[in-house]
Amino acid sequence: MTGTIGRVQEGAWVDKTVSLGEGCVVGQGASLLGLVRVGAGTRVEPGTVVYGPVTVGPGSFIGPNVILGFPSRTELTDSVVKGQNIQDSPSRGQLTIGRDCVVRSGTCIYSDVSIGDSVSFGHNVMVREKVRIGNHTLIGTSVVIDGSCEIGERVSIQTGGYLPINSKIEDSVFLGPHVVLTNDKYVMQKMTKLVGPTIRKGASIGANSLLMPAVEVGEGAIVGAHSLVMHNVPARSVSAGVPARKLKRVPADWRTSLLPS
Amino acid sequence: MTGTIGRVQEGAWVDKTVSLGEGCVVGQGASLLGLVRVGAGTRVEPGTVVYGPVTVGPGSFIGPNVILGFPSRTELTDSVVKGQNIQDSPSRGQLTIGRDCVVRSGTCIYSDVSIGDSVSFGHNVMVREKVRIGNHTLIGTSVVIDGSCEIGERVSIQTGGYLPINSKIEDSVFLGPHVVLTNDKYVMQKMTKLVGPTIRKGASIGANSLLMPAVEVGEGAIVGAHSLVMHNVPARSVSAGVPARKLKRVPADWRTSLLPS
Amino acid sequence: MTGTIGRVQEGAWVDKTVSLGEGCVVGQGASLLGLVRVGAGTRVEPGTVVYGPVTVGPGSFIGPNVILGFPSRTELTDSVVKGQNIQDSPSRGQLTIGRDCVVRSGTCIYSDVSIGDSVSFGHNVMVREKVRIGNHTLIGTSVVIDGSCEIGERVSIQTGGYLPINSKIEDSVFLGPHVVLTNDKYVMQKMTKLVGPTIRKGASIGANSLLMPAVEVGEGAIVGAHSLVMHNVPARSVSAGVPARKLKRVPADWRTSLLPS
Repeated sequence: MTGTIGRVQEGAWVDKTVSLGEGCVVGQGASLLGLVRVGAGTRVEPGTVVYGPVTVGPGSFIGPNVILGFPSRTELTDSVVKGQNIQDSPSRGQLTIGRDCVVRSGTCIYSDVSIGDSVSFGHNVMVREKVRIGNHTLIGTSVVIDGSCEIGERVSIQTGGYLPINSKIEDSVFLGPHVVLTNDKYVMQKMTKLVGPTIRKGASIGANSLLMPAVEVGEGAIVGAHSLVMHNVPARSVSAGVPARKLKRVPADWRTSLLPS
Repeated sequence: MTGTIGRVQEGAWVDKTVSLGEGCVVGQGASLLGLVRVGAGTRVEPGTVVYGPVTVGPGSFIGPNVILGFPSRTELTDSVVKGQNIQDSPSRGQLTIGRDCVVRSGTCIYSDVSIGDSVSFGHNVMVREKVRIGNHTLIGTSVVIDGSCEIGERVSIQTGGYLPINSKIEDSVFLGPHVVLTNDKYVMQKMTKLVGPTIRKGASIGANSLLMPAVEVGEGAIVGAHSLVMHNVPARSVSAGVPARKLKRVPADWRTSLLPS
Repeated sequence: MTGTIGRVQEGAWVDKTVSLGEGCVVGQGASLLGLVRVGAGTRVEPGTVVYGPVTVGPGSFIGPNVILGFPSRTELTDSVVKGQNIQDSPSRGQLTIGRDCVVRSGTCIYSDVSIGDSVSFGHNVMVREKVRIGNHTLIGTSVVIDGSCEIGERVSIQTGGYLPINSKIEDSVFLGPHVVLTNDKYVMQKMTKLVGPTIRKGASIGANSLLMPAVEVGEGAIVGAHSLVMHNVPARSVSAGVPARKLKRVPADWRTSLLPS
């Protein structure tokens, strides 16, 4: 624990390569492995496992029983085949988490991920590699983000949402509970390029709705709950149904009127 | 470990403020922090983290890798800003769990929650603050209860169900797998009071169904699978569809006929 | 740790009854309890808990924070009532995991389960007792398999899928994200035999779809996303909708044409 000034509780394991900022605390039974840098005042709660290279900004809350820097499939296979520790794989991507973030229990974030400031994660979230998440975004409990996704600022993805590879979510989007995006219209029966949906600034999708691959939901549009979205949704429209159809324009006094046209 | 008479396995951490009843066991690597009281014969399995104040009744099973007394957002921010341990926050609510309960792996229950006797939790359940759960209720795997909910006795919420803030579930209700309740009909596009559904005594909701905010499902009513419930459902009726419509009355020989009229 | 030749990291607990193959590694804070046999080169990551009897083949990756050999309800109650450790219950079934498997963080697999070779689990998966899973199958993140299920080889169950007791999935089936199978058409209102669906070889089910109890999806059939499947689906047909209806035959150039007739 050379160069560390934080407090390490009994039963925690902190490699010599770890650097802890002033006032940070590592809880009982946590394991910080490899190149890990923890900012000042950040708490790493009991039972959390961090596989470096990982950087966490100051003032954040990690854990308990969180996993940071989980290996991609290639890194994982490498680790088994070569008999080396995950954190020792030379070509691993870095996980960066900003300042004032909250990562709740059971959440697992892979290597090669970049997370902004003041981002909040619920419990048992899973974020795979090559994902970028903007500032002030909220990722709800049990959400799964399956890799190679761009997620903007002030986004809210509620409990149980699912984003497949190659999805794009712009700023201030709201996805209700259990919204499912898809990227393979042939359900593995035919070779195809996997393209997830794109959801433009300020749009909201109601709970339990399903978006077909590659659809685009326009700026400030609203999709009602339990809908099946098969085609693009016009900006500032309200759509709903199975399949979803346009019902009307978003009323002028709703939030979307505040977004730039 | 003053005043404890249970058995504490190697690598577990038990604060001096913890009291363990006769015959209880704390597994390897578990951490019991702050004011924690564990009843006689209760097992706390390896890797579980308990942030007091928490009381667990006798004859219960907790863990492994369970989190009890997880902090509300305010408590969590306080903990980081003031550099104090979660269990040391002076104004924290208490988590009370009754006797003969089962809390399975990965489940996380917040502070300020009250759970009756013989309640069973599946795996990776999440229960936020200000929730009350009655005796003999079953909360399935991956269920999320998002705070400020009342749940009766002998309720069964199957795998993956979701209850938003301000939902009310009366006694003997059955929610099939992946039932989603909602509380915001404007999906964050307009300020509104968040009111969840109310489900009356002995009603059953089929798998994958979605209930719109503030709807009431009447006593002993049945809603078919994969339905969208937009309006109140009459007592003792069978409804289904997108949107759900009443199909018939519940046949006289079904369970609902056993409920008081 | 008699007879072990693997490497055990600090803070891990390995019972004397555990046997570790050459080159295997047990991470910080893991607990291996009772009769556990780990094959050569297999990694057990930090924080994982294994309740024997469990056998893991060589070249596999377990953890972190995984639970293996979780007790059935009977075993669990026994453990509390008799005050005995889970791994010491005399009549427990064995969990067998093959070679080259991957079990990711937060996943929990019960006792009395048999898993083939090269099987991959995502995060926070739950598999109950009396389940058999064939070689090269992939079980996605947050999938729940509720016991007494048969799952073939090269099956893919994507994120959030749910299989109730008594479901049957043949080889090369694909279930999209959040597909829900059910087994009780009376939603607990009337006594009935619980019979889950049967999905025949090479069929694909689109995301968010719901299958009613006891339905059979024929060989190579396709069900579109967000559908409600109330009746049997003919082999090599494409169906979709609420309720699902047959739209056409699967085109000749799709995968199903490669399956034996």
